[in-house]
Amino acid sequence: MKESKKEGDTKKKLEEFGEGVLQEIEKGKGPKFVTLSRSRSNVRYDEKKGILSLGGNSEERNFVNVGQAKRFMQTMAIASKCHKFISENLHTTIRGLFYQLKYSLGEDIDENIFNEQAESNPLVEDLEVSLGVKREDLNLNANRKGVLAGNMRVIDHFGGERIEIDTSKQGRSGWAIPSDVDNEIEFVDVKAKFVLVVEKDAVWQRLNEDGFWKKENCILITPQGQASRGIRRLIRKLADMGLPVYVFNDADAWGWYIYWTIKTGSMNLAYIGNEIATPEARFIGVTMKDIENYDFLKKLVMKANEVDIKRAQEMLQYPWINRHKEWVAELQKVIKTKTKLEQDTLQAPKLTFIDDYIREKVKKKDFLP
Amino acid sequence: MKESKKEGDTKKKLEEFGEGVLQEIEKGKGPKFVTLSRSRSNVRYDEKKGILSLGGNSEERNFVNVGQAKRFMQTMAIASKCHKFISENLHTTIRGLFYQLKYSLGEDIDENIFNEQAESNPLVEDLEVSLGVKREDLNLNANRKGVLAGNMRVIDHFGGERIEIDTSKQGRSGWAIPSDVDNEIEFVDVKAKFVLVVEKDAVWQRLNEDGFWKKENCILITPQGQASRGIRRLIRKLADMGLPVYVFNDADAWGWYIYWTIKTGSMNLAYIGNEIATPEARFIGVTMKDIENYDFLKKLVMKANEVDIKRAQEMLQYPWINRHKEWVAELQKVIKTKTKLEQDTLQAPKLTFIDDYIREKVKKKDFLP
Repeated sequence: MKESKKEGDTKKKLEEFGEGVLQEIEKGKGPKFVTLSRSRSNVRYDEKKGILSLGGNSEERNFVNVGQAKRFMQTMAIASKCHKFISENLHTTIRGLFYQLKYSLGEDIDENIFNEQAESNPLVEDLEVSLGVKREDLNLNANRKGVLAGNMRVIDHFGGERIEIDTSKQGRSGWAIPSDVDNEIEFVDVKAKFVLVVEKDAVWQRLNEDGFWKKENCILITPQGQASRGIRRLIRKLADMGLPVYVFNDADAWGWYIYWTIKTGSMNLAYIGNEIATPEARFIGVTMKDIENYDFLKKLVMKANEVDIKRAQEMLQYPWINRHKEWVAELQKVIKTKTKLEQDTLQAPKLTFIDDYIREKVKKKDFLP
Repeated sequence: MKESKKEGDTKKKLEEFGEGVLQEIEKGKGPKFVTLSRSRSNVRYDEKKGILSLGGNSEERNFVNVGQAKRFMQTMAIASKCHKFISENLHTTIRGLFYQLKYSLGEDIDENIFNEQAESNPLVEDLEVSLGVKREDLNLNANRKGVLAGNMRVIDHFGGERIEIDTSKQGRSGWAIPSDVDNEIEFVDVKAKFVLVVEKDAVWQRLNEDGFWKKENCILITPQGQASRGIRRLIRKLADMGLPVYVFNDADAWGWYIYWTIKTGSMNLAYIGNEIATPEARFIGVTMKDIENYDFLKKLVMKANEVDIKRAQEMLQYPWINRHKEWVAELQKVIKTKTKLEQDTLQAPKLTFIDDYIREKVKKKDFLP
């Protein structure tokens, strides 16, 4: 079995964290640890990397501080629970963790020190940042969504078994992308030439049915809407293998948001931006510009709603977006014409037109940055 | 390849439908067809079958009727498009269909006779009811969600290939349940003793990790919230194979709704109630009654919100629910105590307690009807 990152890494980090606290107590010092502020004021756009990440504002958590003592104890309880989960080789979610914390903190503590999950969630993040791990490394699964098809294999070290999954043999279903694509999962024989991420499952199914990923030798992914942590991490990993990443979404507020979240990461997850952002990603479409090139789309544009217009205006304010004249033109077109476009429209002339569209865009490298 | 139900059935029905219309025109009659009213007043609870289905109120659609001529033509256009999809062996969605209709109705018709998808959706239903088929048979995929693990195999006749998927070898991912589980899909070697449907994917993952379906020899399904048409149909099919179906949800408005939709079907889909409802299903938990039996749950109940209370009150009015004294007691408990309970709470004493809970309930046949 592939050496688990957790056994060799996260578990040890948790132990060192606990031992460090103990040592400080033994030395008569007040135990403390350092984390980074995740407030918006400490989120910055890293020009060089092209991702949203945290700035240097660190925060100390001190046990000997009336305002922090309870949260410190709570953090230790979370660390202890996660250490147990890793030792047992069992996973749960931040909700499962919360119920464990609320029920009992251990044999010796009977007091109810957790009331709401809103108390435990930020402390999990504290621990992630402080230890330099992701919650997935703490055996805390995040929501998963999305499927994949393509010429590669997955080795899933699961339940003591080595399960091999050929993602080119999953039929109409595709391979359901797990929450954690790092620990106990290997991607082998990745033979594709590029990654195609498609916003909607319906369009993914269309392309899968046409064997698009076979013909064009790509890895075909749908996040089924916004990309989960696991999918963003998977896209990052595939990009690290040298594959170009093309994202195919609606030309509307939601489609743009999904793209930029994949590309630069998000404010909320700026603390793991390095691991989940893929600045190399390119936007394949659909675009308002497509309407000039594909005449039939004129008939199929939709009225943009307030959310779309407002989002376009906001995006024009972001320096990492308005530096690209192509995006400025695209967003201004939406604001000016008050229209938007769905990727599903490309099925209008014939069901397989989507395939032709993507093939041509990839061939001409006709992307938005 | 397994004979496709569509080739031998739906395609022929569409052709007969078209020929019938032609013949009536040739005879100098106004063409018409009959469908059933899907209005709420024609939805009834079928006592004998235990499902929501349509009553006998039929409606005629006449071409020679100023108020109906346009919709008649639209319906013919939909029938024609679906016939084409089936002939091409390609699938789309009702959204994809709409864009095709909006773009062009064919070589000879240039007029824009569809403006909104709200026009085409009910006509698809007209066609389903009139022909006695489901939209999946018309090559129109519905939204899919949900995964499955268990001792069985799926033969997916997909893209000209015969793809065999062993649903006991899908690791942490599970097999993603497709939109259409009838045409071109076979379920073979179903060796399980029962079906366990689990509302939340997080809890499904917990049980999958524990190998619960292996130990108890069940088919473990999560609809990931409300069950899709495909999942409801799959549950019906598994019940037809003689497997008992147990549903494990939250004790709240959403959890009850998911259960009753699986069991009796829903108002909106009463027109295919026979094919997607599973009145044999039983509710395994969690229940408010559990709080009496599992002491630790006292600490973990949540405050019910207005939606939960209102839903409980509404459910007490439904004759198919209030006939069961166990459900009356359960719902009244929620209304009286203004509390509810999540299935995730069962992880509180230890992560694997969920397994013990389900095992005991199944053993004792301790279900709500």
